[in-house]
Amino acid sequence: MSVIYDRVALIGLGLIAGSMALAMREVGLAREIVGHARSSETRATALEIGLVDRVCETAAEAVRDADLVVLAVPVGAMAAVAAEIAPHLKPGATVTDVGSVKQAVVTAVAPHLPEGVHFIPGHPLAGTEHSGPRSGFASLFKNRWWLFTPEEHADSDAVARIETLVQGFGAKTERMDAAHHDLVLAVTSHTPHLIAYTMVGVADHLKRVTESEVVQYSAAGFRDFTRIAASDPTMWRDVFLQNKEAVLDILGRFTEELFVLQRAIRMGDGDHLFDYFTRTRAIRRGIIEAGQDTAAPDFGRNQRSAEKARI
Amino acid sequence: MSVIYDRVALIGLGLIAGSMALAMREVGLAREIVGHARSSETRATALEIGLVDRVCETAAEAVRDADLVVLAVPVGAMAAVAAEIAPHLKPGATVTDVGSVKQAVVTAVAPHLPEGVHFIPGHPLAGTEHSGPRSGFASLFKNRWWLFTPEEHADSDAVARIETLVQGFGAKTERMDAAHHDLVLAVTSHTPHLIAYTMVGVADHLKRVTESEVVQYSAAGFRDFTRIAASDPTMWRDVFLQNKEAVLDILGRFTEELFVLQRAIRMGDGDHLFDYFTRTRAIRRGIIEAGQDTAAPDFGRNQRSAEKARI
Repeated sequence: MSVIYDRVALIGLGLIAGSMALAMREVGLAREIVGHARSSETRATALEIGLVDRVCETAAEAVRDADLVVLAVPVGAMAAVAAEIAPHLKPGATVTDVGSVKQAVVTAVAPHLPEGVHFIPGHPLAGTEHSGPRSGFASLFKNRWWLFTPEEHADSDAVARIETLVQGFGAKTERMDAAHHDLVLAVTSHTPHLIAYTMVGVADHLKRVTESEVVQYSAAGFRDFTRIAASDPTMWRDVFLQNKEAVLDILGRFTEELFVLQRAIRMGDGDHLFDYFTRTRAIRRGIIEAGQDTAAPDFGRNQRSAEKARI
Repeated sequence: MSVIYDRVALIGLGLIAGSMALAMREVGLAREIVGHARSSETRATALEIGLVDRVCETAAEAVRDADLVVLAVPVGAMAAVAAEIAPHLKPGATVTDVGSVKQAVVTAVAPHLPEGVHFIPGHPLAGTEHSGPRSGFASLFKNRWWLFTPEEHADSDAVARIETLVQGFGAKTERMDAAHHDLVLAVTSHTPHLIAYTMVGVADHLKRVTESEVVQYSAAGFRDFTRIAASDPTMWRDVFLQNKEAVLDILGRFTEELFVLQRAIRMGDGDHLFDYFTRTRAIRRGIIEAGQDTAAPDFGRNQRSAEKARI
């Protein structure tokens, strides 16, 4: 594939930006990659492991002459970064972000950007529970969705160009409205994460069950919760604060549903439980048919990678 | 390894019993395996795919002269099966079960069994979201825990013998009190399952988010919930009805915790969220250190098995 952006500036050098840098290098999608991170240690690491061609001490310096600027900082930090870089952006440049919420990012960033700069908010549905510059890997976005929420009047060439970039990483792209994005993600990601965090917290302070028991017997279901409850605390704090309305909406629905099931347990209403569990099973089948997971028996599914890790 | 039980009777021929049969055959742990299932179709399948040496139309017939009887039926069906087989058990035989709750099984089964028969309740922490006689595989129990809850006066030779059997499947064994088992499992398995079922149910009736969106973007966290929410509805109905006290206890704690986090979101209390998420992250690290999961970046962790399935 050929170069899509001459110079790319990455603001923030964590898991997502690092993986983007490695993916751009692997396929040759950018001529030069410049990076900035607040911490000098992160900047030194990014240089040392070759994530970027050079680092800048300020975001303002990093975006100079950049054709694409990627805001890969926690959502709560977006407004300050946008204000800082705005006067230094090259006319015609594209600014995108990788935040997990979109309405709040639009509100924080758009007012700062000058005319003639294309702002195309984005969100890659990819991640691991690891963070920092050393956590990135080029294949992170392979077969994953990358959602964009351009405004209606957005420049269609600029949108197509950034889509081509992330398709070069192996990602699948989709466009939607920012408000709709936030609701969809509240259902498929944000609320599940909050619930997982909560369940892990409950296990933690239950003294009648020892910590070693929780850990040893986690494969019985709890382990999947701990996996998603181990993600970056700063990022998730910001997600919940910035997607407050949608998360509170879904949480309210969740609690109502849970109380109905809880009452069925208390009253011994087995038919209600059976019918409910039969319905949810059908949804799982839909996900398998859509190719988003495999039906192979795999409660021991990490054995292969665990074995690999031991080698 | 040599034969540990001369004749084994499996009552119920689903995922667990089927996997036990295949594991016993692979290692040669039983001389003869007899099976019974209520459905004639299941019995025919079990014979056809060679799970068992012969099938019987009644459980009473199946247990005749058996040295080990395995009750592998839903917890709600245990009492009726125990009453049926009791008069036909061989003196000195061992009866075990594979139910996910233990106090209720002891209450249902123990009163029926004659003196001289050893009842050693058990619970393998292994499973997939699949069920039925064709879902079993010999390696299901490899490196998984198999918990036993023998009463204090239980025959120690009989306990050691059944432990040797399941260790032959590759399982790790542990003994504990039945009440403690039920609490530990309420935390590590039962409540997480109920929560996963609930979250999947919420996604299902949210019409503003289309089903295809829920399915397509499930990899963002929701997918792990659908996996555990796809297990056998009958089995899980019985788990919740039979481990009611412990599940309601943990659910109460869960709801309290969730409300505190929900309030922090509503009030914009970022410090509270950050501290909470930092604590839960430490628990995840404990699980990785205990070797119960891998730290490898693997949100695409099913790719390997998906590729395998396509071959």
